[in-house]
Amino acid sequence: MKRDVFKNISPLDHRYSLRKDNFADYSEYFSEEAVIKYQCQVELALVKALEQRCLCSQKVVDEVEAAIQEVEVGEVYQEEKKTKHNIRALVNCIRNKVSDEAKPFIHLSATSYDIVDTANSLRYKEATEKLLTSKIINLLDEWLRIAEEEKETLQMGRTHGQHAEPITFGFVMANYCHRLKERLDRLYESAQNLKGKMSGAVGAYNASNLFFTEPDEFEKDVLTELGLEAAPVSSQIVPGEYMVDFVHSLISIYGVLADFSDDMRHLQRTEIGEVGEYFEKDQVGSSTMPHKRNPINYENVKSMWKEFMPRIITYYQDQLSEHQRDLTNSASGRFIPEIATGLLLSVDRLKRVSEKMQVDQKEMFANFNQTRETVIAEPLYIVLAAAGHPDAHEKVRKLTLQAEEEGKKLKRIVKESDELETYLNDLDDRQRKMLFNPELYTGIAKRKTEEIVDDIRKNIRRYKNALEN
Amino acid sequence: MKRDVFKNISPLDHRYSLRKDNFADYSEYFSEEAVIKYQCQVELALVKALEQRCLCSQKVVDEVEAAIQEVEVGEVYQEEKKTKHNIRALVNCIRNKVSDEAKPFIHLSATSYDIVDTANSLRYKEATEKLLTSKIINLLDEWLRIAEEEKETLQMGRTHGQHAEPITFGFVMANYCHRLKERLDRLYESAQNLKGKMSGAVGAYNASNLFFTEPDEFEKDVLTELGLEAAPVSSQIVPGEYMVDFVHSLISIYGVLADFSDDMRHLQRTEIGEVGEYFEKDQVGSSTMPHKRNPINYENVKSMWKEFMPRIITYYQDQLSEHQRDLTNSASGRFIPEIATGLLLSVDRLKRVSEKMQVDQKEMFANFNQTRETVIAEPLYIVLAAAGHPDAHEKVRKLTLQAEEEGKKLKRIVKESDELETYLNDLDDRQRKMLFNPELYTGIAKRKTEEIVDDIRKNIRRYKNALEN
Amino acid sequence: MKRDVFKNISPLDHRYSLRKDNFADYSEYFSEEAVIKYQCQVELALVKALEQRCLCSQKVVDEVEAAIQEVEVGEVYQEEKKTKHNIRALVNCIRNKVSDEAKPFIHLSATSYDIVDTANSLRYKEATEKLLTSKIINLLDEWLRIAEEEKETLQMGRTHGQHAEPITFGFVMANYCHRLKERLDRLYESAQNLKGKMSGAVGAYNASNLFFTEPDEFEKDVLTELGLEAAPVSSQIVPGEYMVDFVHSLISIYGVLADFSDDMRHLQRTEIGEVGEYFEKDQVGSSTMPHKRNPINYENVKSMWKEFMPRIITYYQDQLSEHQRDLTNSASGRFIPEIATGLLLSVDRLKRVSEKMQVDQKEMFANFNQTRETVIAEPLYIVLAAAGHPDAHEKVRKLTLQAEEEGKKLKRIVKESDELETYLNDLDDRQRKMLFNPELYTGIAKRKTEEIVDDIRKNIRRYKNALEN
Amino acid sequence: MKRDVFKNISPLDHRYSLRKDNFADYSEYFSEEAVIKYQCQVELALVKALEQRCLCSQKVVDEVEAAIQEVEVGEVYQEEKKTKHNIRALVNCIRNKVSDEAKPFIHLSATSYDIVDTANSLRYKEATEKLLTSKIINLLDEWLRIAEEEKETLQMGRTHGQHAEPITFGFVMANYCHRLKERLDRLYESAQNLKGKMSGAVGAYNASNLFFTEPDEFEKDVLTELGLEAAPVSSQIVPGEYMVDFVHSLISIYGVLADFSDDMRHLQRTEIGEVGEYFEKDQVGSSTMPHKRNPINYENVKSMWKEFMPRIITYYQDQLSEHQRDLTNSASGRFIPEIATGLLLSVDRLKRVSEKMQVDQKEMFANFNQTRETVIAEPLYIVLAAAGHPDAHEKVRKLTLQAEEEGKKLKRIVKESDELETYLNDLDDRQRKMLFNPELYTGIAKRKTEEIVDDIRKNIRRYKNALEN
Repeated sequence: MKRDVFKNISPLDHRYSLRKDNFADYSEYFSEEAVIKYQCQVELALVKALEQRCLCSQKVVDEVEAAIQEVEVGEVYQEEKKTKHNIRALVNCIRNKVSDEAKPFIHLSATSYDIVDTANSLRYKEATEKLLTSKIINLLDEWLRIAEEEKETLQMGRTHGQHAEPITFGFVMANYCHRLKERLDRLYESAQNLKGKMSGAVGAYNASNLFFTEPDEFEKDVLTELGLEAAPVSSQIVPGEYMVDFVHSLISIYGVLADFSDDMRHLQRTEIGEVGEYFEKDQVGSSTMPHKRNPINYENVKSMWKEFMPRIITYYQDQLSEHQRDLTNSASGRFIPEIATGLLLSVDRLKRVSEKMQVDQKEMFANFNQTRETVIAEPLYIVLAAAGHPDAHEKVRKLTLQAEEEGKKLKRIVKESDELETYLNDLDDRQRKMLFNPELYTGIAKRKTEEIVDDIRKNIRRYKNALEN
Repeated sequence: MKRDVFKNISPLDHRYSLRKDNFADYSEYFSEEAVIKYQCQVELALVKALEQRCLCSQKVVDEVEAAIQEVEVGEVYQEEKKTKHNIRALVNCIRNKVSDEAKPFIHLSATSYDIVDTANSLRYKEATEKLLTSKIINLLDEWLRIAEEEKETLQMGRTHGQHAEPITFGFVMANYCHRLKERLDRLYESAQNLKGKMSGAVGAYNASNLFFTEPDEFEKDVLTELGLEAAPVSSQIVPGEYMVDFVHSLISIYGVLADFSDDMRHLQRTEIGEVGEYFEKDQVGSSTMPHKRNPINYENVKSMWKEFMPRIITYYQDQLSEHQRDLTNSASGRFIPEIATGLLLSVDRLKRVSEKMQVDQKEMFANFNQTRETVIAEPLYIVLAAAGHPDAHEKVRKLTLQAEEEGKKLKRIVKESDELETYLNDLDDRQRKMLFNPELYTGIAKRKTEEIVDDIRKNIRRYKNALEN
Repeated sequence: MKRDVFKNISPLDHRYSLRKDNFADYSEYFSEEAVIKYQCQVELALVKALEQRCLCSQKVVDEVEAAIQEVEVGEVYQEEKKTKHNIRALVNCIRNKVSDEAKPFIHLSATSYDIVDTANSLRYKEATEKLLTSKIINLLDEWLRIAEEEKETLQMGRTHGQHAEPITFGFVMANYCHRLKERLDRLYESAQNLKGKMSGAVGAYNASNLFFTEPDEFEKDVLTELGLEAAPVSSQIVPGEYMVDFVHSLISIYGVLADFSDDMRHLQRTEIGEVGEYFEKDQVGSSTMPHKRNPINYENVKSMWKEFMPRIITYYQDQLSEHQRDLTNSASGRFIPEIATGLLLSVDRLKRVSEKMQVDQKEMFANFNQTRETVIAEPLYIVLAAAGHPDAHEKVRKLTLQAEEEGKKLKRIVKESDELETYLNDLDDRQRKMLFNPELYTGIAKRKTEEIVDDIRKNIRRYKNALEN
Repeated sequence: MKRDVFKNISPLDHRYSLRKDNFADYSEYFSEEAVIKYQCQVELALVKALEQRCLCSQKVVDEVEAAIQEVEVGEVYQEEKKTKHNIRALVNCIRNKVSDEAKPFIHLSATSYDIVDTANSLRYKEATEKLLTSKIINLLDEWLRIAEEEKETLQMGRTHGQHAEPITFGFVMANYCHRLKERLDRLYESAQNLKGKMSGAVGAYNASNLFFTEPDEFEKDVLTELGLEAAPVSSQIVPGEYMVDFVHSLISIYGVLADFSDDMRHLQRTEIGEVGEYFEKDQVGSSTMPHKRNPINYENVKSMWKEFMPRIITYYQDQLSEHQRDLTNSASGRFIPEIATGLLLSVDRLKRVSEKMQVDQKEMFANFNQTRETVIAEPLYIVLAAAGHPDAHEKVRKLTLQAEEEGKKLKRIVKESDELETYLNDLDDRQRKMLFNPELYTGIAKRKTEEIVDDIRKNIRRYKNALEN
């Protein structure tokens, strides 16, 4: 059934779905078509396991394998109009495509949510392994490149929006690289930890126990075929914890992207101007102010994060399901793909923007110079303290005020002070250099950047290898 | 641009969009097509106001009026690929359809968000007046009918899931009727309170002040043309409060529907069985348990509420916009139609289910009878107290335990007690009847039901009248 | 029972409770002591209404009135250990202080939540009228003062963090004034709309109907005594909508404060420096960087908003209560005072900071001058368009780029252009002035500021009058 | 500073803090006193590491160790009034208690958040290891006991609130046991994963690099002393991900408790009556209905979950911190202890209730008997299908309707049917037994219960061992 995309309700299905390249990828895992495709796979795995236990013949398996290739979503929906039950509709559609011999074995011993929950776990696991990981790594590669390129680019560190102490821009990027990589690991783990089930209507294997004395072993066979583990306990459904962990991992990745975007937005402020989005020749910044260059991509990421972040609440609520389950997690569960799609849109967007990120090293240096003279307040206080000054912090705080009032450089006041001289005599060369050349006072920003970049590059190889296979 | 609906990501655009009758309605207000349609209306209103102030001719107005009929969403998106700016793209599309004389007056003095915010306020206002109100009233009509029909149907009231004191089922429904009606009023108010703006890029009317000495009067003219009020203050955007009130009203209506659905679900429990969803002849309750009759519609409503309720958080965050605005409310704002659509889906669903609600009066009476004898503990304690018993509550609490232990009816123990006799002698007939006939102990449930139903029917006439015009 | 405050768990009860002046105020409405105090008032009102209907004597009323003066919270808690029921414990405590004649009339015909819900509505209503309104108006007075003082102070308006078009700082403040005032109105309304009830255990007036043929009239009498309206419908409890509206109004006020604080934080950035928090002589900005001056108060407000904003979710959930109620809204409802207290803390904090806000007009002007030459792009495009230029926006966009590339002022390029000259000839003096003197291009910022300030001052008089009485 | 607890604002500090036994435990980790105590430990660890690197003498360490024993919270707060900076206040308080020789080394090279973040990570880690784990295991022990005791207790499994297929009550409990245990593991992991930092004001070790060429090694030394790992990257603060994982784990445990409580509440419904809270002799169920026995403890847990669950939103927002940090995570971070305390209150409460849980096996069996005859629809359909019936599900669905209409037992209709006879002939004895004796149709509920209980008992030994040491 076809429809004009602009008649769709969700921005995910009109505005944000119009980059064709991406949308096809997302749709492969996150559309209703994908739901049915994965459910068919689970029905097939079930028949295969029945065959292994000699309940049906290989011919039945072959028939089902052929049948599910031909199942179309529209057909299932048509059938559902009659049954008012989506999995029974799917089962009927498969049954209609096989011989009478094969018919009884389709879905045998399973309850609907054996199929639904298992298919979703499989779907999100594979989407993570193949799609999310790949996209995130592409973004990470860009960030690693920038971190490396800018590892020596002096930038004033800012806390509370105030100039604090110097760092390098590469160091900032390295921090984001590590945070993203760390979250990728968590996402991957949580996806690997998604569980399937084949324990029947109330989780006690009532039906499968009719055929097997160890129905939990039978469950394992079905799920192993799909590459999944069985939930150690279940009711009609897999307990909600595994899925809410997965959603949490999606949303906490999003937080890193939003934080990054916020930083870049602010670095792009007129008064700061350290970082820029690339602007195309014909691009319009404002419909009324022809001179504007706005950080619209970073703003978009922050905005999308605001949209998807609160949705964790839905899945905390879905942990509660009465007795052996109520169905109040059914509709809500269908919206998880929106969160993953939202995240992917932002990952892809940030990758595009990061490829063309414009780092203005001159402006960074100019901003640094604005307060280069006050920066030394910190090392000054610290070396004074270490040299035994009994009240170094308070002393320096007052010197700073004095410098401000007298319009003198703090460095000069220090050098003129006899009181301080005695303490500073003990400084070694390295310390003295750092103290009076604030551009050297960047700690181990450069080395740390290098180490982090190297470390991540090594660590993500396993994801890359897995993707290539 | 057409696409298979099953490739869509959002359940709103595949699964839940397949009742064609509803979807077309929703789409009229909540799709991207609707966005553009309403933005065109605002651009037209602007040109009309310019004409009133003699900045352009009526011919320009006529041209623009004709042009916007022809604007197609796909065309705007095509143009946006070049401009990277959606409103500039729209403006260009309109300009391309008018004479050189008319071109300059399109969008003159406006900033993008004069158009965007005004169009959204108008869109949600009209969706409320025409679509949401109509749908909610349809549901309300069903509920009013049931309330009236069941106003005398005895039901045991339950608190903490425990039998408490008797009421009537109509009274329960009347409560829901009033709550829904009260929320409808709030929704309507909040929609009427949505504001437009035409105050330019930073809210100070900088551009329009070039032409008019009272640019705020000019703003009023534009918005009056659309039936909107101007925001008393604005920056580049209308302050977020009006919109978050609107979202709050949507979500708090949803809470009433979810509460209702929860109640009906529980009344449909096997052990209670007082209310049922109608089941069609071929409908399947469970893919594995052929005997099941599940409250799937009520469960769906609860589930959708869980999905949409947390989204208020997004719009509380959107109250924050840096200085004269940042764009981080742009993408998120595009998702408001999802909430309204979610709500409509549930309103429509509950209407269908309520039309065929099966109220089992016998089962209600049977359940009542389970505890009819203990119900009198409350009136007993109260009349004893009123008659001067110094410790009536404690006395009755112990009698209840005694009745339980001895397996006697509380009524009988009371009648046999000399101590109590003295207190009960003073009861008048009405009191005595209620005390010993628990089915009469329903307070003013029936009268209250009648009054509420009448009152609501009177009050919603104004909505119905408005809808007919 | 006394306890070291530093052993408390909630920051509201240790860290943020240590400004003694404020805490006593908050505690008067929002502590457990306040809960009991208001519940006593409701019990008294009930007895008074019983007396009016001649069920008991004035002596009983007098006894109860005296008794509740003596009720202590600790005593109620002691009793609750026995009853495991808080309202029954309260009733017992009052009963213990009156004669046997009076005992039976205490709580007569009421259910616990008649007391609890009514007392909470009353408590929040009075807290709004007396405490919240007063505090918010104090803050508003400061903001109005600043708005007036700075109504002509030129400031560059910013959108997307980019310089946009000029405004005045007073205009910015006036916007915040109006938003706060508008929310105050909503808060006041929602508090006035909080309902009481006296409809008994299941909302059908079962018990009171034993004594009165119009028990709903009796309910009105009790509530009128307290200055409250009765909920038009109720179960054991008042429907959750009124309370969630109240919480929404608290949180949406908080959003305005958070938005303001965010703006001020950013205006205090080292590179911007337009606004400052006052720093005391001995105040330390950083434990390691003696030179820092951080916007800690604005940061605190934003942070507290992050803490309290999500809590609306709790009260949306509390709209759902099974049948005639379950108790799952009891504990959660006890936390509403935390939200109000959080808000008050931020209101009080912003008032203190606003009193000493340092507006750096020079820095504002310096920042304005950074981009004064590009600002004219907007009016230029608009007057060109109005003068009939067929493609003014695109033309000016390109001129802007040209100015940037050639390092020339946009104004100069314009003046040198023959093509543009023809269009600009038609400008009148007022337009020409604004076009070439960007500091004049502030729209109606000043007049609007004056109007808003005047209007608010007039409007809040009614609150001030009410507070004085 | 002492205060009447009933003047406190937070229910955590009045109502819910009054079980003295618990509150002292909670307070040890979650009060402001605890904050200062842990910050002192970090300051001490820093000085120890300085001594190891020979920057100061052992005497200095000894002095600081003695000094922090004497630091009192009130004193720190007094000092903060002057400094307006809490960590500088703490440092001053320690400095005041040591010799001039020791003074300079206190806090040397550290920034405030080196102390704050490290102290919080340590505090929550220890609270998890010592308090939360212990409490959760106590609850788990009760649940394991019940699971074991009730492993053969027949109960009707329920889906959608409808009778589905039989299980045992022990199996239900075993499910909850496993879910709680699985979450405990996650909580423990997330607590172990909390990080410290000693990387200075902007995360680049600027200050410590003055003294050490490998300041990251120095950081490790400090943290190892405390049993913590260093954050692999940091700015002024530890990135928010570790903490939001911890909060997520707290809240997702809470979800399991809320789910359990919901189930038990419903099993306690008048019409179901399978499970009961123990009621004390003098306990009052309702202030007006002396006969009520309400599931108030389960309701309380659900209610508290509603209060604390939404608060994850705060910590997702705290992942965003501008540049090298803004302070908008400071106040909000102070509320994490409330979540942990809320959880502990519910854990403790459920333990008390579970100790005295009343399982009514007779009522369970009576409820089972209500629908024992329809239960066999599932096994019937399945064995028919396995035996080759081409349309078993539909066949049985219609038989069910027939049984209902004719008022016959499904079993009897089956036995009378010649058509079905042929299919059923092939059943073996085990299958036949299960098919016609629904009480045997409980799958592997009993064995699974035993396995889960055994497995958990083995697995939690490591926690118990750790607690004993």
